This record gives sequence, structure tokens and C-alpha cells, in this order.
Amino acid sequence: MVYNFSASNAMLDADVLEKVKDGMNNYQGAGVCVLELAAGSKAYQELYNRAEQSIRSLMNIPQNFKILFLSGGKEVQFSAIPINMFSGRKFADYVLTGMNSKSASIEAKKYGDVAIAASSAGATPTFSTVPEVKRSDIRPDADYVYICFNNAIHGTKFTYIPDTGSVPLVADMSSFLLTEPVDMSKFALVYASADESIGVSGITVVILREDFVSGAPHETPAHLNYKRIIADRDVYNAPNAFSLFLLNAVLDKFTEMGGLVEIKRRNERKASRFYDYLDRQSFYTVPVDKKCRSLTNVIFTTGVDALDKKFCKEADAIGLKNLEGSHSVGGMRASLYNSMPMEGVEKLIAFMETFAHENPKFFG
Amino acid sequence: MVYNFSASNAMLDADVLEKVKDGMNNYQGAGVCVLELAAGSKAYQELYNRAEQSIRSLMNIPQNFKILFLSGGKEVQFSAIPINMFSGRKFADYVLTGMNSKSASIEAKKYGDVAIAASSAGATPTFSTVPEVKRSDIRPDADYVYICFNNAIHGTKFTYIPDTGSVPLVADMSSFLLTEPVDMSKFALVYASADESIGVSGITVVILREDFVSGAPHETPAHLNYKRIIADRDVYNAPNAFSLFLLNAVLDKFTEMGGLVEIKRRNERKASRFYDYLDRQSFYTVPVDKKCRSLTNVIFTTGVDALDKKFCKEADAIGLKNLEGSHSVGGMRASLYNSMPMEGVEKLIAFMETFAHENPKFFG
Repeated sequence: MVYNFSASNAMLDADVLEKVKDGMNNYQGAGVCVLELAAGSKAYQELYNRAEQSIRSLMNIPQNFKILFLSGGKEVQFSAIPINMFSGRKFADYVLTGMNSKSASIEAKKYGDVAIAASSAGATPTFSTVPEVKRSDIRPDADYVYICFNNAIHGTKFTYIPDTGSVPLVADMSSFLLTEPVDMSKFALVYASADESIGVSGITVVILREDFVSGAPHETPAHLNYKRIIADRDVYNAPNAFSLFLLNAVLDKFTEMGGLVEIKRRNERKASRFYDYLDRQSFYTVPVDKKCRSLTNVIFTTGVDALDKKFCKEADAIGLKNLEGSHSVGGMRASLYNSMPMEGVEKLIAFMETFAHENPKFFG
Repeated sequence: MVYNFSASNAMLDADVLEKVKDGMNNYQGAGVCVLELAAGSKAYQELYNRAEQSIRSLMNIPQNFKILFLSGGKEVQFSAIPINMFSGRKFADYVLTGMNSKSASIEAKKYGDVAIAASSAGATPTFSTVPEVKRSDIRPDADYVYICFNNAIHGTKFTYIPDTGSVPLVADMSSFLLTEPVDMSKFALVYASADESIGVSGITVVILREDFVSGAPHETPAHLNYKRIIADRDVYNAPNAFSLFLLNAVLDKFTEMGGLVEIKRRNERKASRFYDYLDRQSFYTVPVDKKCRSLTNVIFTTGVDALDKKFCKEADAIGLKNLEGSHSVGGMRASLYNSMPMEGVEKLIAFMETFAHENPKFFG
């Protein structure tokens, strides 16, 4: 048995994979392969609609939100959000909590006036905490406030939803979406690259209130114009049928698991077990502020680079895969998304104990 | 046995599908599923590089061309091409031969001065031929000339490469790429939505000479900036690992088939057999100029809408799938891409003869 601890792609469930292989041979008994379904086809529309309904139901999303499935990754949304959300004075306030929010803010500067409402870049180590965002940090005439809800690279998360008053709140929920319930009434737009917490690469989920979309300028490329996409959603930047098919299989699994309340309970149980172990020993350290630790992406290190590399190599050899930290941070990262079973966590802890025992550290 | 005559997606080979299912279980013997490979991973890079090398080798592409794999469909390139190719006076000359070149020209007008160098919109039926493009039709100071090489909706193709002098030539080769050899020295940029002739949805192949890319304006979204993508190709608008994996399986198959010279011979043989049959009978008509018929997308009709619908329904029931024409044109369309075997064509002709016999047409 192999456990995939990658931050992206999330591990996929064995029975989800079986369902996908069935669709390869004979999609809906028609003798046609799901890989051959065209974007305009009736079967494609059905996959799109069903995935939309499942997400709406799992997340309890009100009818005034649209749900879009797009391709091209989160970088496309880094551009699309300012292009579609700016109006009037073109003010946006970004909260910097990691590489992704920083990249998003740099892209947004091409289109308007971007202020940094709060930042944890100055923390030690950088981005190891999430700042408190106060109403007074936000320009009342900003078009939107942008946050990254869970930071897979740095192992932190927002444990609260910032109060932005009447300013619309936009959140990157990659590595977080569908891992626990969210009060959508607090947001204007939420999006997630589905390869992270959902485990489906090739799709970005965008959930938005159309009344907050100002309308993109005339020269906006059609595939970046939310209103245009909503009107013609299987033409502009649409994901392929296979990704939607896989997404449906994963969403069905999440529903089977009992929905987001039960999934949150499971994820908290796994994270508690793992952080409790980490906090009880001294061989590994967690360079993250305890108050805002991510439930889904756990960062830890032996503190010795060569030892971290040895750790990842030996773990890989016994089926504990992709434990390397992001290359910008180093160390280790264990991503415990929905489909990671408790057994994966237990096997990892057992290996960590053995590794610590076999590799005493010498200092000085 | 089912034959898929869809214009997009192209039919996939049975042994390609077997290879894909193997990768699901145990990619490269590592116990990990190919669906879980992250975009930044070493395995992803290998898939990207191998697909690039295969296309370079199959198409005999000189080293001064870059090959990029992108997501988001051809509509993204409708925007990216003018944004990256315009310089100085921002003149571009488009040749209109169907819906796709028309949509591309409309998108390009957002960014510069677009002239129509030639058009077959006025033909009867519209776009049923490909105009002759003369040197005098092209503005000598244009930044580029744009053509759509094969028109899957209207069943036509360019049977020659227009002489554009020193003006760079850009071609949409969706529904054409890898179906026969191309003299790349005549082009500055060639691209194709891979779901059509290659049968791999989720990837757009862009083959370009970097020296013809002027450099996009500062405010260009990063994922649309070719120079930016070339520098960081697994970040900006990158396709997912699974699409690249499938692409490699298909490209290996094309190589096994004997490369593009042999593939062209097979495609010509299939198209000749089918057009010869169509030209010998009078029940079905081909509303396309004989001089520029597409080898890959054969358009035909009974001339009676209700009969066309009956035809498609009965064909579907015996495993001849997706013979409906594009909704803008109606009638029937049989796409005979590389993986459609001659047996598929023979089975279709046999059905057509029976159908014609069983459904005499009454006129007047």
C-alpha cells in the first residue's frame, strides 16, 4: 500500500480509481470512452451540471453564487480576478501569507492600485504565521480584499474569516476547498485549483456572486471574462470531459464519506494525531505558529538539510510518497487531504519514530 | 466494435487505452497513479520533454522552433496570438475560411488593426471553399497573416501554403496537426487544439519561432505571454500530467504506425475510398468544393433534415458514433483521423448503402 502525501495532487481513493477505469472502457454503457467526449456534447454538459450540483450541495452554496469549472491553473485566476473585480478607482487590498498571495498581488498590480492590507512576510521563518486582519487595515473604497485561506507551502491557515465590512472578500481556497464547511455568505468569490485538496488536476473551481463582478474591460481576452464564460461555459477555458468525470467520482466519494461536517471531523482527527505526536518529541520541529497551523499541510523538519533528504528518500522506499517540502522552504510536508486514511498517518508516525531512533543528531 | 467519427475528440486506439489504464494503477512501477503527478514533479517534466521530442521528430521541426503544451483550448490562443505577435503598427491580415478563423479575427480586433486578406464567407454554402490567397492580398507591413489550415466544421482544407513573402504566417492546425507532414519552414507559429486530430483533450500544442514573438505588453496576463511561458512552462497555463501521459501514448502510436508519411498515405486511402463512394452515388451530396476537400473531416447530407437525423440515430445504434454535423451546418460529418481504421470507413459505407436503399427520398 502506497500513501501519497503530496500537496498537489492530493491522493485519490482506490475505489475512485476503479470507477475511472470503468469509464475508460465503456462510458454509461455506450461503448464509448470517457476520454473521447467532446466539450460541446450532451454527456459533457451532464458531467458539468452534476459536478456543479454536488459542490453546491456539499458546500451548501446559495443560489446567488455561480459555480464555474475552468482550466489553466490558479495563475489564470491571479489575472482574471483583478480584471473582473476592479471598477471605479481600481483599488484592491491583498493580505500576504505566502508565495501564492504574493504572486497574485504582483499580477493584480498590472491592472490597478494594490495595497498590502497585512502581511506575515516579516515573520521568522517568513510566512510562518497568519496576520490578524483588522477593519482599519482595509481601504473602505477598495474593490475587494484578497486572501489565501490555507498556505500549502508554509503550512498555515486562516482560522477566522476577516471582517471586511462592505468590501467584497475574495479567497484562494486551493489546498482547502471541500476539506471542511465554509460560510459562503462571507465571500464574494472563492476559487481553488482542484489538484490540491480535491485531487483533480486540470480544473480550477470558481464560485462567485455575479453581482460583485464589475464587468471586464472591452479588451479582455474572452476566456478571462467571467460574464462571457458564464454565458458560454463550455467554450471559454473549459476543462476537458475526463477531468469533470474524475471530479464527479471524487465528489461522489466525499458525499459517501458523509459530507463536509464528517470530513472535517476526520481531517481534524488526523491532524491532531499528527501534531500531537510532533509536539511530544524533539527530533522534528514544526516551524509554524501554533495558532494557525494548517490541518491539511503539515510542515516539519529535522533541522538538518541532509537528514531531511535522507528522511524523504527512506520514506519513499517504504511507500510514503512525496514528503518533500516545497523547494522554496525545504524540509518535509505531509499533506493530509480527505482521501488520506488514518492508517497513512500512523504508518508515517511509526516510520518517523524509527528514523529518529536510527539517526541521532550531533550538534556543534 | 464502436467507431467514433467525432471531429473532437478523435477516436483513440484500443492499445493506447490499455496503456493508459496501466498508468492508472502503477505509473512506471512506482505504485503511484499517473493522475496524482504534480505539475512541478520530475515525472511531469519527463512527460513534457518526451512529448516535445516525439512531436519534433514526427514533424521534423527545426531547433529554432519552441514547442509548448498549454491548456484552455484554442480560444486562449485566439487572444495570445495577437497579444504576442503584434508590434509597431499592429496590423494583422486574417483569411476567413470558417467559424474558427472568424472568431479568431474578432478576438484579434481587440488588440490591433485586423484586415480580411481573403474570405470564403460569400460562397454557397458559406465557407464551402478555400480562397486563393495572393501576395497582393497581404499588407506588406502586417505583423502576421492568419489562416485556419483545415476547417472541421465546413469540411475544407488549404491544399497549398500561401506565399506571404516576408510576413510571418500563423496557422490554426486543429483537426490537421500530425495527420500529414508539414513544411514548418513556411510558418512562424502553428498551433492545434489536440482534442481534434490528435485525440487528446486538455492540451493545445503551440509550435513557434521565438524570434517572431514581439513580446507582449506589460499588462498581459502572465499565462498569455509566450516568453513568460517559455521561461516557466510548468507554471503558466500548463496542462495536467494525465493529458501529457495520454499525449505520449498517442504519439508513440503514431510513431509505431510509421510516422507522418505513412499516416498521410493511410489517411488519403481512407478519404479516397469514402469520397469515391460519395461521388459515385446520388443519395448523399457533399456540399464542399472538390478542389479543397478536407481529408480528415468529410461533410455530407441527404439534403433532407429529418432524414439526416434518422441517419445519425440509426448509425449510432450500430456503433457508428458522432456522425452529426456541426450544429451550425447540420447534415453529417465523418472525421477520419489517424486512429480511424479502414474497417470503420467500410462499415460506414455499408450502412450508408443500406440506409439509402431503405429510405427513398420523395421530392416536390
